[in-house]
Amino acid sequence: MPKPIAKVAVNGYGTIGKRVSDAVALQDDMKLVGIADISPNWRVKLATGKGYTVYASLPDKLELMEKGGLEVAGTLNDLLEEVDLVIDCTPPGIGATNKPRYEKAGVKAVFEGGEKADVAEMSFVAQCNYEEALGRDFVRIVSCNTTAICRSLGAFHREFGVKKARVIIVRRAADPWEGSKGPINATIPDLVTPSHHGPDAKTVLPDLNIVTLSCKVPTTLAHTHFVMVEPKAGVSEGDMLDLFRREPRMILLSAADGFDGTQTIIEFMRDLGRPRYDMWELTIFDKSISVKEGEAYWIAAVHSEAIVIPENIDAIRAMTELETNARASIEKTDESLGVCDLRPRAGSQLLAGHRAL
Amino acid sequence: MPKPIAKVAVNGYGTIGKRVSDAVALQDDMKLVGIADISPNWRVKLATGKGYTVYASLPDKLELMEKGGLEVAGTLNDLLEEVDLVIDCTPPGIGATNKPRYEKAGVKAVFEGGEKADVAEMSFVAQCNYEEALGRDFVRIVSCNTTAICRSLGAFHREFGVKKARVIIVRRAADPWEGSKGPINATIPDLVTPSHHGPDAKTVLPDLNIVTLSCKVPTTLAHTHFVMVEPKAGVSEGDMLDLFRREPRMILLSAADGFDGTQTIIEFMRDLGRPRYDMWELTIFDKSISVKEGEAYWIAAVHSEAIVIPENIDAIRAMTELETNARASIEKTDESLGVCDLRPRAGSQLLAGHRAL
Amino acid sequence: MPKPIAKVAVNGYGTIGKRVSDAVALQDDMKLVGIADISPNWRVKLATGKGYTVYASLPDKLELMEKGGLEVAGTLNDLLEEVDLVIDCTPPGIGATNKPRYEKAGVKAVFEGGEKADVAEMSFVAQCNYEEALGRDFVRIVSCNTTAICRSLGAFHREFGVKKARVIIVRRAADPWEGSKGPINATIPDLVTPSHHGPDAKTVLPDLNIVTLSCKVPTTLAHTHFVMVEPKAGVSEGDMLDLFRREPRMILLSAADGFDGTQTIIEFMRDLGRPRYDMWELTIFDKSISVKEGEAYWIAAVHSEAIVIPENIDAIRAMTELETNARASIEKTDESLGVCDLRPRAGSQLLAGHRAL
Amino acid sequence: MPKPIAKVAVNGYGTIGKRVSDAVALQDDMKLVGIADISPNWRVKLATGKGYTVYASLPDKLELMEKGGLEVAGTLNDLLEEVDLVIDCTPPGIGATNKPRYEKAGVKAVFEGGEKADVAEMSFVAQCNYEEALGRDFVRIVSCNTTAICRSLGAFHREFGVKKARVIIVRRAADPWEGSKGPINATIPDLVTPSHHGPDAKTVLPDLNIVTLSCKVPTTLAHTHFVMVEPKAGVSEGDMLDLFRREPRMILLSAADGFDGTQTIIEFMRDLGRPRYDMWELTIFDKSISVKEGEAYWIAAVHSEAIVIPENIDAIRAMTELETNARASIEKTDESLGVCDLRPRAGSQLLAGHRAL
Repeated sequence: MPKPIAKVAVNGYGTIGKRVSDAVALQDDMKLVGIADISPNWRVKLATGKGYTVYASLPDKLELMEKGGLEVAGTLNDLLEEVDLVIDCTPPGIGATNKPRYEKAGVKAVFEGGEKADVAEMSFVAQCNYEEALGRDFVRIVSCNTTAICRSLGAFHREFGVKKARVIIVRRAADPWEGSKGPINATIPDLVTPSHHGPDAKTVLPDLNIVTLSCKVPTTLAHTHFVMVEPKAGVSEGDMLDLFRREPRMILLSAADGFDGTQTIIEFMRDLGRPRYDMWELTIFDKSISVKEGEAYWIAAVHSEAIVIPENIDAIRAMTELETNARASIEKTDESLGVCDLRPRAGSQLLAGHRAL
Repeated sequence: MPKPIAKVAVNGYGTIGKRVSDAVALQDDMKLVGIADISPNWRVKLATGKGYTVYASLPDKLELMEKGGLEVAGTLNDLLEEVDLVIDCTPPGIGATNKPRYEKAGVKAVFEGGEKADVAEMSFVAQCNYEEALGRDFVRIVSCNTTAICRSLGAFHREFGVKKARVIIVRRAADPWEGSKGPINATIPDLVTPSHHGPDAKTVLPDLNIVTLSCKVPTTLAHTHFVMVEPKAGVSEGDMLDLFRREPRMILLSAADGFDGTQTIIEFMRDLGRPRYDMWELTIFDKSISVKEGEAYWIAAVHSEAIVIPENIDAIRAMTELETNARASIEKTDESLGVCDLRPRAGSQLLAGHRAL
Repeated sequence: MPKPIAKVAVNGYGTIGKRVSDAVALQDDMKLVGIADISPNWRVKLATGKGYTVYASLPDKLELMEKGGLEVAGTLNDLLEEVDLVIDCTPPGIGATNKPRYEKAGVKAVFEGGEKADVAEMSFVAQCNYEEALGRDFVRIVSCNTTAICRSLGAFHREFGVKKARVIIVRRAADPWEGSKGPINATIPDLVTPSHHGPDAKTVLPDLNIVTLSCKVPTTLAHTHFVMVEPKAGVSEGDMLDLFRREPRMILLSAADGFDGTQTIIEFMRDLGRPRYDMWELTIFDKSISVKEGEAYWIAAVHSEAIVIPENIDAIRAMTELETNARASIEKTDESLGVCDLRPRAGSQLLAGHRAL
Repeated sequence: MPKPIAKVAVNGYGTIGKRVSDAVALQDDMKLVGIADISPNWRVKLATGKGYTVYASLPDKLELMEKGGLEVAGTLNDLLEEVDLVIDCTPPGIGATNKPRYEKAGVKAVFEGGEKADVAEMSFVAQCNYEEALGRDFVRIVSCNTTAICRSLGAFHREFGVKKARVIIVRRAADPWEGSKGPINATIPDLVTPSHHGPDAKTVLPDLNIVTLSCKVPTTLAHTHFVMVEPKAGVSEGDMLDLFRREPRMILLSAADGFDGTQTIIEFMRDLGRPRYDMWELTIFDKSISVKEGEAYWIAAVHSEAIVIPENIDAIRAMTELETNARASIEKTDESLGVCDLRPRAGSQLLAGHRAL
C-alpha cells in the first residue's frame, strides 16, 4: 500500500511562501503540487528553476506572468483542484478574502499570522497544541513573535508555572529585501499598551498570563524579545538552561563564543550554511538567562522570516492526520530541515568530521 | 550688597559640556568663567565665537590648540583658580582621574553619569534629592536614562507607591554627530540581566523597587523607555495623566497630534526653535499611558543629549547654596531654559501672539 | 507713500511649506497672509502658535481641522482672494492640479521642484536667472539637488567655463521626521542613466553640459554631491576656493576643523543655533576641492529641507517686481535669514563678541 | 604519478579567511592544511566543525584558544612548515608585519587588499594579469572595489579602449556581522579627491586612465559603483551587454525581474542557496547600461565579503604553477564554486530540473 501523501499548494510566494514551499518539498509525506503568485519577478522565476509548477493566483495576472517569461500552468482554481491543502501566504488580511475560494474548492487551508484569529478554527504552535489541530480544515499559524512567545513561555509555563510574564518586543522594521519601508532613524513604539501580542499568544495558550509592549527599530535582521517572568514556583538559572536545552526548536548561544547581538547570530547562521541563513529556532542569549529575587529573565532573537516555517509543516501533518503525535511530527520536520543542528551544512564547503559547535 | 554669583568652569566641551556651558551662561546667579578642552575643532571655535574663554584641559594640548587657531587663555589649572565649581564633562571614566586636580585646587565638582557613583558624595536628580546636595563638594549627575527613570518613577512612587517597576530601555546607539559608532543593522542587547540602570536609579531613589533591561539600536535621536509598574495603591489613567502634567520637566505629546515615534518628537523640537532641538524634558506618549488589571504602563522618549542639562544647573545652585529650596531652583532653571515651554521660540521666525500648542 | 508689500499665501505646510512661511514672515516687504493645509497635526498647530492664520486647503477638510482643535479662518479659496501670490508646497504632482485654482483666483504662483518644469513659465535659481522671473505669473523653484548644482556649477561655468560636468548624487532617502520610508539597509540606485537631475539643471542653465547619476541611501541628514568637471579653461584649486568663497549661498567647511561628513556638518548647524538646524547654503568640503590633470573635483552637502528656502523668497520678489536686481534681492533675503552667517545665533545662548568661525 | 597538490594555509579566519578556506577546500588540486587565528570564537569553532585543523597565529594565544574549548594543533610556525603557500587574511596592515615570518619559513604568500601594493611583487586580478603571477612568491589580491573595477573596466578597456573612466564608489560602511562600526545616519565622503581606488586599479592595469571618488554610507550589504566611461572607439549598449555577458565573473540582473537595489540582489543570492549568500561576481544592473553622446554608463553592486575569493584561488594556482593558463584556472575555480551559476543550488531545497533564471 502506498504511503499516504498530502498534496499541498502554496498561495503567495513571498518571504513566507517561498520558505514554506521549500520545506514542503523536503517532506517525504508531502508533495508540493504547485505554487501561485501574481508577478513574474525573480522569486517566482526561481520557483520554476527549482522545478515547482507555477500558477496565477488571480486569473487576470496569468497573462502578465506569461509575458514576463514564466511558464504558467493555470490559475489558482486549477491548482486547488489538485490538492488536499493550501498554505495561504498572501499579504496580511488577504487570506481572509481568499478563504471562500478554498471552501468552495473543498480544500483545507493554513493561514499565517497576518490574519485575524477568527479566520480559522484555531491558532497553532506545534509544541503547544498540535493535537487540537488533528483533522481541522482551517488552522492559523501565529506570527513570528507569537510563535516565539509560545515556544519559550509555553515551555516555561508547563514546567514551572507562569504567574505573570512581561515581554518587550523590539521588532525589525522591514525584511532584508524590502527597499521602501522605514524608519531609517527612529524608534517607533506601538502606542497601544499592552500590545496585541499578548492576546495573540492567548489564542494558543489561553491560561498564560502575559502582557507585552512593542516597538519597531531600523534593522532588518531579527526581532529581539526581552522577557521577565514571575514564576509560580521557584526556578533557578540551571533549571531554565536545562529546559531550554531540551525543548525543541530553541537554541542557546553563548556570549563567550562571541554572540553579542542579532548581527553575530545571523552571521553564525550564514557560516552554518543554512539556506537563506534561516534560523527556525528561537535563539536565547545564554548569558541573559538569570533569576533575581525570584523573577526570571532572558533575551531572545527571533528570525521573522523563518521561525514559523516548521509550524506550517506540522500543521499540514496534523490537519491531514498523517501523524497524530506532536512529538513525532516535530522530530520529523526538524530532521528534514535541520532544525537545532548546529553543524556546518552538508555541501561543497563541508569536509568530513562534523561536530556540533 | 551684590548678589552672590557662582563662578563656574566647564571641563570638556563635547555633547554635554557645550550644552551645560550655554545653560550656565543663561543664569543670572552664575558666571561661566571659562571652558576647557583638548582640541581646536569647530566646537571649541564656536565657544570662542560665543565669547567663552577657552583653556587647555591638558597642558600639552595648549600648543596644539593655539596652532589650530584658538585663543587659549591658559590651562585648566589656571581656570580652576578662578572658579568656585567645575562641571566635569569629560568622557566616561576620565572624571574620576580628574578629581584629584579639583581637590587640590579646592573647587567643588559636578560629575556626569559616565562616572561611577563613588566618584561623588551623592548622585543627583533635582526633583528627587535636591536638598541632600546642599553645600556638597562632589555631586554626580546620573545618566540620561537614570534621570528619566527618576523623574517619572520617582514621581509615581511618591504619589502612588511602586510595588515593583520594570523598564526596558531601547537606547540610541550613537549621538547624531558621531560617524564611527554602530551598529548599522542590528539590535545589541545588554546581556547582563537586569541591567545596571536599575541599581543606578537606586543611588538616587534607594527604596524604589526597579529592574531594567536594555539594548542599543541603530538610531541617533533618542532613547525610548517602556515602563510597566505595579503600584502599591490603585491608580487610574487619569491619575497618571494628572501627575505627569503637573510634575516639572515632563511633557505629554499626543498621538492625535501626530506624535508616533522619536522622529516626530524631535521634529517638534526643531519646529519649536529649541537650540540644537534640545528636549530637556522626559516626553511621554500620552496614548501609551494605560492601566490594565492593576498594572500601569507608559512609553517615553529620552533625549540623551539634553535631558541632564537642567540637573547640572540645579546641582550648582544646591552645592553653592545659592538656593536652598528645590522647587525654587527648578523653576528658576526651567524659566531660564524654557523647559516645558511648548510655544514657538522667540526669534526672527516668531510673530506675535504666542500660544501653547 | 507706503512701501509696496507682497501679500503671500503658502499652500501645504510640510517640510518646505513651514520653512517658506517662516522666511516670508521675516521679510519687511512681504506679508504672510495665511497658510493652508489639510490636517490638524502638530505642525499646523504650531503655525497657529506663531500667529499664522490657518485655512483649509480642501473645503472638506475644514471640519476635520476644526474638530482637531484648530482655529480655521476659511478655505484656500478665501485665502487666495486676499493675496498676490501663493507658494504651492503641496506634495509632488499636486501643484499641477492646484494650478487652475490659482489661475481662476488670479494670483501668481510659485511651484516647487516636485512639479514638472512645464507647470510654470520658467524654472528658477536666484543666482542664475533672477531677471527672467521679473513679473512672471508662474515660476518653479527647482529641487534641492538641482538648486545645488545650479549654484556651484552655474558659478563655475560662468567663471571658467564647463566643458563637461559629471555629478553623482547620493541622496538621503527620507526626511528626518518620516517614519515609514526606507530603505533601512540598502543602496538603491536610479537605474535610468544619466538621471533626470542633469536635464532638470538645464531648465535653468540650458548651455551647461552636465550628466548625473543618483542613488538613495539610508540616511536622513543631507544629500551629498560628488562633482567632476572638465573646465574649458585652466583652473586651479585656489581659483575654485576664491570663487566659492565669494559666491552667495555657499560655504566651505574644513576637514581641519573636524568636518568629515554630513553628520558633523549638521551638528555644526545645530551648534550655530540655526532654526531647525537649517542649512540654506550649499556646503563644500574644502579638502575635497582639487584639480588633477586638468579636471576639477569637489564634494558638497545639500540640506534637502532648507536649501531652496531663499530661492522661494527671491522668486516672490522677482515675480512681484518688488526688486528688479538679483544681487539686491539675494542680499536682502540672505540678511533676513542669516544665510552664510557662521556666527552663533543671537538668542539666550549667545554672549557678547560674535566672531565668525 | 600523483597529481600535484598545493598545500595551503590560511592565516586569519575572519570575513575573508573563512571564505578562502572553504574555497581552497573545494579545489581538487589544493589541500587546506590548516587555518590560524587568535581567538576561540564561534567562527574558529565552526572551522573545527568543518574538519579544518586550527593553529594559533600567535604563540601566546594558544593557551587562550585551548581554554576556550578549541583543539589547537600548534602555532602558525608549525603550520607554515607543512605548506607551500599561505593566504594572509589578517586585518589591514598586519600582513606586512607577518611577511618576514613567511619569508623565514620559505613559503609563498598571498596578501589581501588591505595591504599596501609594495608588500608583494605584484597586484593581482585573474582576468587581467594571471600570467604575471606565475611562479611568484608574493602576490597581493587587490581590494573588493579595485577587483570590481579591474573586472569591468579592464574588459571594457581591452575591447573598446578607455579614454577616461570615472567611478564613484558608494561603500557599505561595515560588514553584516560588525556591531560597533558606523555611521548610523550619515554619508561620509573620502575627502581626498580623487580617491586611492584609481591608483590602486593602476597597480593591475597601469594604462587604464581612471579617477575615482568614494564615500561610505550606513549599509552592510554591498558597495555600489557608478561608472562613466569615455571610450576610445564608438560603443553601443548592445556591445556592452555582449561583453559583460561573455566576460567571466560578471552577471547582469534585470530591473524587469525586480532587481532595483542591493537589497534585492542580496535576497536573490539568498534564494539561490549560495553559501553565506556570497556573490563572487560583479553584478551589473542591466537597465543602467547606457550610452549617451558617446559616453558609456553603468551601475554595479560589489559584494565586499565575497568578490575576491575566486581571485585568491587563481593566485594560488598561478604562484604554484599548477595551471599556467589564465582562462583554464578561472574556469576551474568558477566551476568549483559555482560562479555565474544562477540556478538554485543543489541541496535539500532543490528538486529536479534546474534551469537558469
